[in-house]
Amino acid sequence: MEFTTAQIAALLGGKVKGDPNGKIRMLAKIQDAKPGQIAFLANPKYEQFIYTTQATAVIVSDQFEPKKEITPSLIIVKDPYSSFTVLLEEYHKMLNFQKSGVEEPSHVGEGTVIGTNIYRGAYSYVGNQVRIGDNVKIYPNVFIGDRVVIGDNTILHAGVKIYAGTRVGSNVTIHAGTVLGSDGFGFAPQADGTYKTIPQLGHVVIEDNVSIGANTVIDCATMMGDQTIIRKGVKLDNLIQIAHNVEIGKNTVIAAQTGVSGSTRVGENCIIAGQVGIGGHIEIADRTSLGGQVGITSSVTEPGQQFFGTPPLRLKEFFRSFALFKKLPELNNRVRELEKLQQGSSGAVQKD
Amino acid sequence: MEFTTAQIAALLGGKVKGDPNGKIRMLAKIQDAKPGQIAFLANPKYEQFIYTTQATAVIVSDQFEPKKEITPSLIIVKDPYSSFTVLLEEYHKMLNFQKSGVEEPSHVGEGTVIGTNIYRGAYSYVGNQVRIGDNVKIYPNVFIGDRVVIGDNTILHAGVKIYAGTRVGSNVTIHAGTVLGSDGFGFAPQADGTYKTIPQLGHVVIEDNVSIGANTVIDCATMMGDQTIIRKGVKLDNLIQIAHNVEIGKNTVIAAQTGVSGSTRVGENCIIAGQVGIGGHIEIADRTSLGGQVGITSSVTEPGQQFFGTPPLRLKEFFRSFALFKKLPELNNRVRELEKLQQGSSGAVQKD
Amino acid sequence: MEFTTAQIAALLGGKVKGDPNGKIRMLAKIQDAKPGQIAFLANPKYEQFIYTTQATAVIVSDQFEPKKEITPSLIIVKDPYSSFTVLLEEYHKMLNFQKSGVEEPSHVGEGTVIGTNIYRGAYSYVGNQVRIGDNVKIYPNVFIGDRVVIGDNTILHAGVKIYAGTRVGSNVTIHAGTVLGSDGFGFAPQADGTYKTIPQLGHVVIEDNVSIGANTVIDCATMMGDQTIIRKGVKLDNLIQIAHNVEIGKNTVIAAQTGVSGSTRVGENCIIAGQVGIGGHIEIADRTSLGGQVGITSSVTEPGQQFFGTPPLRLKEFFRSFALFKKLPELNNRVRELEKLQQGSSGAVQKD
Repeated sequence: MEFTTAQIAALLGGKVKGDPNGKIRMLAKIQDAKPGQIAFLANPKYEQFIYTTQATAVIVSDQFEPKKEITPSLIIVKDPYSSFTVLLEEYHKMLNFQKSGVEEPSHVGEGTVIGTNIYRGAYSYVGNQVRIGDNVKIYPNVFIGDRVVIGDNTILHAGVKIYAGTRVGSNVTIHAGTVLGSDGFGFAPQADGTYKTIPQLGHVVIEDNVSIGANTVIDCATMMGDQTIIRKGVKLDNLIQIAHNVEIGKNTVIAAQTGVSGSTRVGENCIIAGQVGIGGHIEIADRTSLGGQVGITSSVTEPGQQFFGTPPLRLKEFFRSFALFKKLPELNNRVRELEKLQQGSSGAVQKD
Repeated sequence: MEFTTAQIAALLGGKVKGDPNGKIRMLAKIQDAKPGQIAFLANPKYEQFIYTTQATAVIVSDQFEPKKEITPSLIIVKDPYSSFTVLLEEYHKMLNFQKSGVEEPSHVGEGTVIGTNIYRGAYSYVGNQVRIGDNVKIYPNVFIGDRVVIGDNTILHAGVKIYAGTRVGSNVTIHAGTVLGSDGFGFAPQADGTYKTIPQLGHVVIEDNVSIGANTVIDCATMMGDQTIIRKGVKLDNLIQIAHNVEIGKNTVIAAQTGVSGSTRVGENCIIAGQVGIGGHIEIADRTSLGGQVGITSSVTEPGQQFFGTPPLRLKEFFRSFALFKKLPELNNRVRELEKLQQGSSGAVQKD
Repeated sequence: MEFTTAQIAALLGGKVKGDPNGKIRMLAKIQDAKPGQIAFLANPKYEQFIYTTQATAVIVSDQFEPKKEITPSLIIVKDPYSSFTVLLEEYHKMLNFQKSGVEEPSHVGEGTVIGTNIYRGAYSYVGNQVRIGDNVKIYPNVFIGDRVVIGDNTILHAGVKIYAGTRVGSNVTIHAGTVLGSDGFGFAPQADGTYKTIPQLGHVVIEDNVSIGANTVIDCATMMGDQTIIRKGVKLDNLIQIAHNVEIGKNTVIAAQTGVSGSTRVGENCIIAGQVGIGGHIEIADRTSLGGQVGITSSVTEPGQQFFGTPPLRLKEFFRSFALFKKLPELNNRVRELEKLQQGSSGAVQKD
């Protein structure tokens, strides 16, 4: 794909200064850009590079006044950084959406209905009675079990596995190797020390605009008709564990390697760092913020609070206590000193 | 699949009151049930729903005396909850075991022997000299390396990868994306700061009745002839790491994201929570209970103890100390107060 | 494969005592070895077994003087342990490298160039414009996206997924289910509480001699032209998370389930234990050693230090403070005792 400087200026609503017919094939940083590439200048710190860059075009602010001669064409806009972001997104879409058509062999079961403008990669498997929307990309080696429903514009990267009965919304991205709908971890202890498997018959629901990283696992709910739910706009990173019957509230963001135990409800717009552990049957209030490796052992009822540690303390409390944890040897010495003085004085008293 | 109320009553050893010919296709909770579904009433709290439910049939106790008129047929049994569990299991079996036959393309190597009543999904790969028992379900995109042995009734979900030489028992369930038999993490430091790979030539053995979650990894043992062993009845959750030469004792249950380091032996009937880390070359006594995120740095010799924290303390000890960790600023102030008084009094003495 | 005792002796530069024509098919421990197998004796503790072993041959030191009659042939070398390691490696190579040729169906895209002596397993997928070196092993169900570059002698185990544009060096081993090049976790908060995806356009670079375990995830860098880099000789274990724009320095070793957050640089020759969490935009000095479950919240500037805890303390400091954490109830009692005495004495003064 190749665009002219004028075409890109039109896309960004900017003006061209210089050659409008320069051919642009790629984006780059101003200090690295080569002919055929476009860069941007927003931060004055980088101004030096505009006088030496080999870029075919540079996006600049309408406030920018060159101090020396400039080789590349300029595209003049209000906010160069935002404009560049727009280009990045367009480029990304192109990369993602260039895949289309059906590669063979790939499996489609009976009674399955698939929308238009689909990519189905080689060795992908779509089971029976599945419904798939329009513009969906199914990369190679993806497995989609029976009766799964998938909305429009959703992207399933290589090797994603979706168990039977799962429902995935529109505009969802799921990265490679992630598993949706595996059995919840439910076993009933028996008198002889063994465990009996509790059948896991519920499902997983992923609402619209959710992103899920790579090699994450979301278990199905236990009872038939129940659901593990990831609400609209949630962003989950890699290697996360979401147990059976969990609900993650709208627009909550969870970083890598965090685990949420069974039947817990996490509120909306929470920010949860990496390697956090949240116990089972807990409620986390909206806008809660949890630091890395925090371990949550009971419900958080007040919204908008920050926590640290295992068990968790309010951020300030934690660091106040932790500052003294570091000084425990000193505190211990101070107590010992007092004890000595005390003994000395009481000894003195007794001597008297 | 469809059953009559009378057929289900026969399966449960119960009596029908009402229409024995109602058609039932699914199970549901009494408050949600629709025509064509069966529910149960065990907890009196839910009795209200039996008077309004649209269920075709409800399983009730022989002690149940309706206070109003009831629409659905009743199936009268001794213990409605247990009876419903039996139905759940039957339904689950049906779901799991309805898959059968061979989907093409799927690969079977040379010298491989496969039992009867098998499901082999599309794009599954079975290597050379493999032995697979009866009633085994191999979902799409599963990889089974050379010389693997798999017992009867075992289920390998989509994308499971089993390295050459692994032995898996009967009645084992392994969820999607799990890896058995990858190389143990062994590297010998060299004088120049690089590491030399120590060849990992042992195997993994999974005994009967084990369940393993999704995207878990179990490494092979180091020396030829040695084994990483998961004993009978063990239940492992998702995203667990089991290193080379580990042994997990009978009926031990381990929650998600826990890691067990090389050459460690975990006893029988232990209960290990999520995100626990267990160091290498350690012994954990039988019936040990470890809380979430515990870090075990040395052997646990007394059976049946509970631990919390990193390094771990007995549960009570931990919470006694942690209660004071929270109050460290206060304790610090109290010591400072004593120091002031002490200085005051000795100061007073000196003034005298 | 089968070798004679003489052939193995020649490989090891050793001398045969006994039958040079014994047929050897496998390696074993001296206490377990059976006919057709070769063992070694290095540790005098195991000498007893050489008099009873059924091994066809045993590798012994040139210092070894048998005290009784011996059945197996001997291969006499300088250092039996090293010699055995050489055999282990040869055997391992044989196992790994016996796979060759192309299994069908397997996918190769347009404009892709593949070297000689390749194994491409069934259902493996190689995209467009890919370059693959010589002696590469691509196991079944591997996915390699467009424009990926892979060096010589690299092994990709079953189900590895490599996103478009990733560069993998020579002599790299990647275990089953690992994902390279998934999107970095970048989302810009919007005024309405939702998040907008920041396109992730950079790449992943894996240098030569790197080993990566199973189900690990390495995200691509954010900006086009930027890279997440794993330097020469790095060893990564299973289920590790490496975020966007991270750099892991040469010969650093990281154990399972550890996570490194975005834009962090880990130095060379570090040793990082399991379940460690390292925050974003941090620098870790060379030769840093981090204990299990450590949480790093700020840069480590001094090389060669050891840390423990979250937030981390120097190893000694941590254990000094932790020893007193355990005794906090006692310390609390000692302060209470002092307070009582103080009150008593000041009370006494007032009474006076």
